[in-house]
Amino acid sequence: MNKKTVAVYPGSFDPPTNGHIDLIVRSSKIFDKIIVSIITNPVKQPLFSVEERYKMLQLTTKKIKNVEIDTFNGLLVDYLKKKKIKIVIRGLRVISDFEYEFQMALTNRKLYPEIEIIYLMPSEKWSYISSSLVKEVARFNGEIKNFVPKDVKRFIKNKF
Amino acid sequence: MNKKTVAVYPGSFDPPTNGHIDLIVRSSKIFDKIIVSIITNPVKQPLFSVEERYKMLQLTTKKIKNVEIDTFNGLLVDYLKKKKIKIVIRGLRVISDFEYEFQMALTNRKLYPEIEIIYLMPSEKWSYISSSLVKEVARFNGEIKNFVPKDVKRFIKNKF
Amino acid sequence: MNKKTVAVYPGSFDPPTNGHIDLIVRSSKIFDKIIVSIITNPVKQPLFSVEERYKMLQLTTKKIKNVEIDTFNGLLVDYLKKKKIKIVIRGLRVISDFEYEFQMALTNRKLYPEIEIIYLMPSEKWSYISSSLVKEVARFNGEIKNFVPKDVKRFIKNKF
Amino acid sequence: MNKKTVAVYPGSFDPPTNGHIDLIVRSSKIFDKIIVSIITNPVKQPLFSVEERYKMLQLTTKKIKNVEIDTFNGLLVDYLKKKKIKIVIRGLRVISDFEYEFQMALTNRKLYPEIEIIYLMPSEKWSYISSSLVKEVARFNGEIKNFVPKDVKRFIKNKF
Amino acid sequence: MNKKTVAVYPGSFDPPTNGHIDLIVRSSKIFDKIIVSIITNPVKQPLFSVEERYKMLQLTTKKIKNVEIDTFNGLLVDYLKKKKIKIVIRGLRVISDFEYEFQMALTNRKLYPEIEIIYLMPSEKWSYISSSLVKEVARFNGEIKNFVPKDVKRFIKNKF
Amino acid sequence: MNKKTVAVYPGSFDPPTNGHIDLIVRSSKIFDKIIVSIITNPVKQPLFSVEERYKMLQLTTKKIKNVEIDTFNGLLVDYLKKKKIKIVIRGLRVISDFEYEFQMALTNRKLYPEIEIIYLMPSEKWSYISSSLVKEVARFNGEIKNFVPKDVKRFIKNKF
Repeated sequence: MNKKTVAVYPGSFDPPTNGHIDLIVRSSKIFDKIIVSIITNPVKQPLFSVEERYKMLQLTTKKIKNVEIDTFNGLLVDYLKKKKIKIVIRGLRVISDFEYEFQMALTNRKLYPEIEIIYLMPSEKWSYISSSLVKEVARFNGEIKNFVPKDVKRFIKNKF
Repeated sequence: MNKKTVAVYPGSFDPPTNGHIDLIVRSSKIFDKIIVSIITNPVKQPLFSVEERYKMLQLTTKKIKNVEIDTFNGLLVDYLKKKKIKIVIRGLRVISDFEYEFQMALTNRKLYPEIEIIYLMPSEKWSYISSSLVKEVARFNGEIKNFVPKDVKRFIKNKF
Repeated sequence: MNKKTVAVYPGSFDPPTNGHIDLIVRSSKIFDKIIVSIITNPVKQPLFSVEERYKMLQLTTKKIKNVEIDTFNGLLVDYLKKKKIKIVIRGLRVISDFEYEFQMALTNRKLYPEIEIIYLMPSEKWSYISSSLVKEVARFNGEIKNFVPKDVKRFIKNKF
Repeated sequence: MNKKTVAVYPGSFDPPTNGHIDLIVRSSKIFDKIIVSIITNPVKQPLFSVEERYKMLQLTTKKIKNVEIDTFNGLLVDYLKKKKIKIVIRGLRVISDFEYEFQMALTNRKLYPEIEIIYLMPSEKWSYISSSLVKEVARFNGEIKNFVPKDVKRFIKNKF
Repeated sequence: MNKKTVAVYPGSFDPPTNGHIDLIVRSSKIFDKIIVSIITNPVKQPLFSVEERYKMLQLTTKKIKNVEIDTFNGLLVDYLKKKKIKIVIRGLRVISDFEYEFQMALTNRKLYPEIEIIYLMPSEKWSYISSSLVKEVARFNGEIKNFVPKDVKRFIKNKF
Repeated sequence: MNKKTVAVYPGSFDPPTNGHIDLIVRSSKIFDKIIVSIITNPVKQPLFSVEERYKMLQLTTKKIKNVEIDTFNGLLVDYLKKKKIKIVIRGLRVISDFEYEFQMALTNRKLYPEIEIIYLMPSEKWSYISSSLVKEVARFNGEIKNFVPKDVKRFIKNKF
């Protein structure tokens, strides 16, 4: 009998980008179930409300059967313990902040030793895309169709 | 019905270190089956024969049920295609050569687009250990018991 | 017949430092014309007004024949398209944020495929100087004569 | 006759972590006297008052004979000149911001050529701990006993 | 009257890859003339003779009017002085060895202060390709058509 | 009564460069005694014999009272234990291989927990110089007077 593996992919998703969706698709092929979970109390003030981000993620992942959208408040490790999940997915872009990832990984392991963090690399096509960059381009009316899914583009256009 | 996930953990394992074993244990909890596969034609001349490395890996993983030792020759992607396996495990140490990892990952993806490479972080206790460092310490009679499993230590001592 | 090459060197220049001036001098020897262009809507609140920054750049580059000072608003790629310029100059210091540079470069290429970004390395004497560091030193009455041109020093002294 | 070496270990210590204390202990074994000096005008708004940070440092270093706590205002180099001290201690973690350290080091050397900055590496057990991370975990009621000394934990608990 | 700018793009080109060709095309649009110059005494033993490398470069750049192929022996700076050329082109990949580039750049500047080194970024499609990787893939009969021009592929196939 | 601090500065010194001498001078101002110790069994084949390297170090440090030249064989930690020395000095250049330094530091700490490794930063003037680069330039008759002391230049000239 096989283990049924459930993994959490946590993030701000403010907004979701092509890089996030690429990672969700990849994860969904590896694990039995993926819970994409929105951090509702991030350090930085988000542009989109939790409801909007939930909606965007739902629209852009609706064709992937084993994906579920969720939200959490407080520490990731407390959320994982409550859900009895041990596997966490993080994106690892060629262009990214390793230092921060490592710091968070080692801290979370100390707080919850059973945690296992798995790093996946998105396609190099999305290696430079970040939510904040998408917002900066959109703020000045730049074309964002190469950076986010169509449904997300609509939400962003309404915002500016 | 769940997917049965098999993953390959390729490497030179010349010799296996505590860092390798840590990664095998972690992987074995995430996936249904792990194939630890020894590269038999590495660029650098190995210290241990393929048989010795096979034996060391077998001894140090014998208590983990879902681990299998194997060897391969030539390109990793050809081995994966032949075995019909898509998931590859790589260690990602805080102290490690990201550049090389990224280069290999992007090359392998071009050669075999279905491949999915998963990075796992060993315990920070092993973050600095590498096979070549172990050999260098052993060459000068330094104490290696903190770096490799007991069975591997025996093989190394016989070598020098 | 030769191509007449015009290049834009965009930045906040808040204030211009010896590192910026070094790069302007180098660029002016390579290209037929350099347009040093001040971003008027940066993310961070600048210390100096656009007029002050314009004046400082003008004073410190007045001896270089083929340099022109300009300002722009919005996305760099829109400014380049309007000016029909394809070459952008960026400084690449040994101590600098590559990640950000790469992210911006790849984004700008997607928005304007004809763009060509050229990286120049300032003298190692200025490799550690940044505008924000100069402001921090000046705020506490530290000596800044080794970091900025004389004309810029005067502007900074008036500010604090 | 030997030189009597006094070294300054400057920082925000908002709050002091196990990593800071590890570095103070190491330094105290190398130099004749260590002055741990709190920056009272940092860029970021601190959580703890200068008095609280002074008190926390005093409590956690009281058993180390050759350590003194102090505070300073303005530029580090001015403080060093006034105290006639040339040696500065900085922590160098595997996970840390080298760029910022290098930039500060080279700037400080230009402002005070006699300065000598010494980098020490804390135990890998604390390589990922930072004051800001401790505050983030504490804010959400996470367990911080592995990150800070007992006396500091008490101060943090009172804060939240 | 415009300056006529000639730039040298030095390298081993053992063999030339799509990344090299991308850089030659980019350079040819910026400068009046590009001299692609093969280092004939590299540290590592090359796979292809100077003649073969010359031929491969010639075939793959024959459609670009302002490109010339050349070879040089000894120090790059001596070659530049003899040719009275000051501009050098280097590729700067997201995945690359900055340290080595910086070290060479600062050394070359000390040996020849008039030198100006210009860094260009190849398309992210080629960001991971290197000559040595191409050779490794080819050695094991891997498909290299995505990494090198057709003419180069033929040369490589003949070699193995 | 003060502690008398003795520190070892280990290295290949094949040959000593201006960067090495800068570090020896800095160390000699901080510690009571510096032992510059030549590794006699490095991994790579040295250009200069141990005797030549000893002679070059002696000549270039003869004016510094508290410096002693020595050699060692085998593991650094065994040498330190035998000499009852705990402080090791290492150079930390802006352009340098941190990964290797960290790996060695953590390994040496495991082998000899009392060890304390101190990192010093040479002047930015020497930040790019390495022994292997000096040899490469000298091999092709390049001018090396800006990279090594006069006495060392003489030894190098005799070699080529």
